Amino acid sequence: MAAPAVSIRACRAEDCADIVRMIRELAEFENLSEQVKISDQGLCEDGFCQDPFYKCVVAEVPRECQSKDGHTLIGYGLYFFTYSTWKGRNIYMEDLYVMPEFRGKGIGKKLMSTIAQIGLEQGCTQMKFSVLDWNRPAIDFYLSKEATDLTATEGWHVFRFEAEAMRRLASGE
Amino acid sequence: MAAPAVSIRACRAEDCADIVRMIRELAEFENLSEQVKISDQGLCEDGFCQDPFYKCVVAEVPRECQSKDGHTLIGYGLYFFTYSTWKGRNIYMEDLYVMPEFRGKGIGKKLMSTIAQIGLEQGCTQMKFSVLDWNRPAIDFYLSKEATDLTATEGWHVFRFEAEAMRRLASGE
Repeated sequence: MAAPAVSIRACRAEDCADIVRMIRELAEFENLSEQVKISDQGLCEDGFCQDPFYKCVVAEVPRECQSKDGHTLIGYGLYFFTYSTWKGRNIYMEDLYVMPEFRGKGIGKKLMSTIAQIGLEQGCTQMKFSVLDWNRPAIDFYLSKEATDLTATEGWHVFRFEAEAMRRLASGE
Repeated sequence: MAAPAVSIRACRAEDCADIVRMIRELAEFENLSEQVKISDQGLCEDGFCQDPFYKCVVAEVPRECQSKDGHTLIGYGLYFFTYSTWKGRNIYMEDLYVMPEFRGKGIGKKLMSTIAQIGLEQGCTQMKFSVLDWNRPAIDFYLSKEATDLTATEGWHVFRFEAEAMRRLASGE
């Protein structure tokens, strides 16, 4: 099959249900789907409020190239701006996903390229993201694009406080 | 010595030189000071523009409790809001630092508590941060506060593209 005429564009509020569908598909692939608590409404509120908590680009195919189950939004890249006190402005790619039946056509690369462009336009000098250590195909792909695995090379570990621990911290316990 | 009368407050533009001084002190401790490229002016522009890239709280002591070399800003916690597509709003603590001569008085805990409060007020259900794997005292402290090491438990590795790799990505190479 020839590459579908995919277009990459900023997400709109009405795309949120499709994005949540793909968030769930990605989490299933990562074997961590029990952690998904987001709703269409929550995602929409957080991305389309006065100071949005994230930005997102989607990959869209024409109706004639739709997925087997009738979807035309077939990939997304969700990102936000962060900050390095060493290097300044950063862009962080939280998720990058393409539906399995549309893989191998360069769509993930186009989404990532678009996020890199947006980061450079905003003066970012670094683009970060996280990958599960067993996801070797993804790691090999990112390394081939000259990403550095900071956990392996410098020893950075990511930590998280959940809401209950945050509340204890906040109360000074 | 009794605990100094430390106050925790939001940083102001005129604090940026002191914060850059402490950013350098922290990077020296982390043996990665060659990576520090930030300037007072850059930090000020990025934190006090229309859509700031970060927020920061500082720990301040009265003049009579100043450090040996005359500083009254003796710690800081720099943070920003990020997003989890599984859980929603997150707060990310990029740096937490207290000058060595002021440690052991609960000042780091106060800074961290303040950041947790701000996160909860903004509806965040998670607070994340990164620690170097050899910094055992820090790791033990965070684990005692019920943080989870996501790299150890789930296998998350942090990756980074530098500017040159971003430009290649952006150009579609």
